[in-house]
Amino acid sequence: MDSGPLDVWCNRSFDDASHAELLRGLGPHRLSLAQAGAAGGSGLAEADVAFGQPPVGPALASPRLRWVHLTSAGYTAFDEPATGAGFSAGGKALTTSSAVYAEPCAQHVLALMLAEARKLPLAMRHMLGDRAWAREISRSTARLVGPKTVVLLVGYGSIGARLRELLAPLGPEVIGVRRRPRGDEPLPVFPISALDGLLPRADHVVDLLPANGETQHLFDAARFARMKPGALFYNIGRGSTVVQADLAAALESGRLAGALLDVTDPEPLPPGHPFWGAPNLVVTPHAAGGHAGEDAHLVSHFLENLRRFERGAPLLDRVF
Amino acid sequence: MDSGPLDVWCNRSFDDASHAELLRGLGPHRLSLAQAGAAGGSGLAEADVAFGQPPVGPALASPRLRWVHLTSAGYTAFDEPATGAGFSAGGKALTTSSAVYAEPCAQHVLALMLAEARKLPLAMRHMLGDRAWAREISRSTARLVGPKTVVLLVGYGSIGARLRELLAPLGPEVIGVRRRPRGDEPLPVFPISALDGLLPRADHVVDLLPANGETQHLFDAARFARMKPGALFYNIGRGSTVVQADLAAALESGRLAGALLDVTDPEPLPPGHPFWGAPNLVVTPHAAGGHAGEDAHLVSHFLENLRRFERGAPLLDRVF
Repeated sequence: MDSGPLDVWCNRSFDDASHAELLRGLGPHRLSLAQAGAAGGSGLAEADVAFGQPPVGPALASPRLRWVHLTSAGYTAFDEPATGAGFSAGGKALTTSSAVYAEPCAQHVLALMLAEARKLPLAMRHMLGDRAWAREISRSTARLVGPKTVVLLVGYGSIGARLRELLAPLGPEVIGVRRRPRGDEPLPVFPISALDGLLPRADHVVDLLPANGETQHLFDAARFARMKPGALFYNIGRGSTVVQADLAAALESGRLAGALLDVTDPEPLPPGHPFWGAPNLVVTPHAAGGHAGEDAHLVSHFLENLRRFERGAPLLDRVF
Repeated sequence: MDSGPLDVWCNRSFDDASHAELLRGLGPHRLSLAQAGAAGGSGLAEADVAFGQPPVGPALASPRLRWVHLTSAGYTAFDEPATGAGFSAGGKALTTSSAVYAEPCAQHVLALMLAEARKLPLAMRHMLGDRAWAREISRSTARLVGPKTVVLLVGYGSIGARLRELLAPLGPEVIGVRRRPRGDEPLPVFPISALDGLLPRADHVVDLLPANGETQHLFDAARFARMKPGALFYNIGRGSTVVQADLAAALESGRLAGALLDVTDPEPLPPGHPFWGAPNLVVTPHAAGGHAGEDAHLVSHFLENLRRFERGAPLLDRVF
């Protein structure tokens, strides 16, 4: 690749230590700071590399831009065929921070799954409510995740791959569904067209889907009705993949034993939303990917990719 | 062993299916039902085998009794040198249901550990309280369990062994402490005399100790003061192993980041107990070993041991 200094645009702010590490790692390259979270694409026309969340239009239009590295695992704004075509035509690459978020998101799903199995939400309700020592009901309704358990990962990717590793010692059957099965996954993976046939088998249905035209409202009343009675539903993907009212109805009818959601629609969940009061629902505030050290990981992951970009090596977490 | 029918005393009641399975598995042996949970030892003098929770004195005194199989993992009432000597002198064996409870207890600890790491208790407090969408604080304080994490298992045994397996994909350093290290454990295991030297290193201190004279109040102010600032303390063992007021003080001072307790002293925790209102404490109601299928597992584990007893093979989960 070009051996001269690159102009690197960035609109994500980092903690001081991570910012210093970014400057150190950039070496001869020039950093141009745009406003954190800015929707405008100011400066993108003069950038070789964009790091953060650049707006799609100016990124596509920039004559110099050759690489966009997003500070998120998702790439909703770029997830359009025309954008992919435009990037390819312009010789531009899109990468994500998927590797940064696979570990915390996988641990988050396992935390929700085991907490529910061990009746931790019930214990918290008693702790913060009537202070009853609900020993008998807790013991008799507690579950194990084990060899008879079926876990369906919808939107199998790096989070699902890591979650499968974390689940392995517990021994459940793990099945994946993704847009384009590759055939080299270490578990059975099916296209989304197979979803309806798989839903009746799963004890745990884990939504890891990104937001796009294909996934919008994928989980609706018909799909909840296909789930095994007493199944648990998790959403770590995006709120828009679920018809919220249909999920509420499936919980209220008792069809689902519970739902554990890190993402909702809308976000933040307004104080009057019925989800807050649902007895068999747990919501975490879109925090599955968060972790102490997040900024440092984002920067080190970008710098690893920058080293690869410099020498023309394949980029990590490349979308197109 | 003796090939004639055995008289089997039992003071534990089971669900109907498990009771039927017990009768089927007993075959030619005779079942004598004592009152469930009875403290009296009525009938023990005429029994060859006791299954449940027989009182120690009548079990020791019984001229015929050759084997006691407890329906618990713990054996507090039998955990005295004189009892062991009496059992040995009388040719009696004591076994527990340890294998039945290792899996749920290990999953329970992992559930508590990951739930706290992913800030699930905080999310529940907001859900059941102010309904705030605490995204930033949840993300920035969420932790990972990973290769830099040190987990100290105090009272290493079958629960600890299983927990180590479940933790393996997360990669933490796991260290064990037990009364009598055997030397064949698959991790470093030290005697209790090494505890004080290990406490400052651990991010997670997991108390899995039984109740006995040696473990009474083992975790006191001095030991909490040795723990790493910000460490988390778990108790899945017995409440009596912890000076409750000292734990409360360590939490209040901020020395410990939190405590996650399945056992307390007293139990049930009375409604006015300060633990209920502690902001960095989670309590589950002595439910770690509970699981749907518990009765069936207790019966199948006993019957497996009965088959071994019949043919004079080594018994599972034998204490002495």
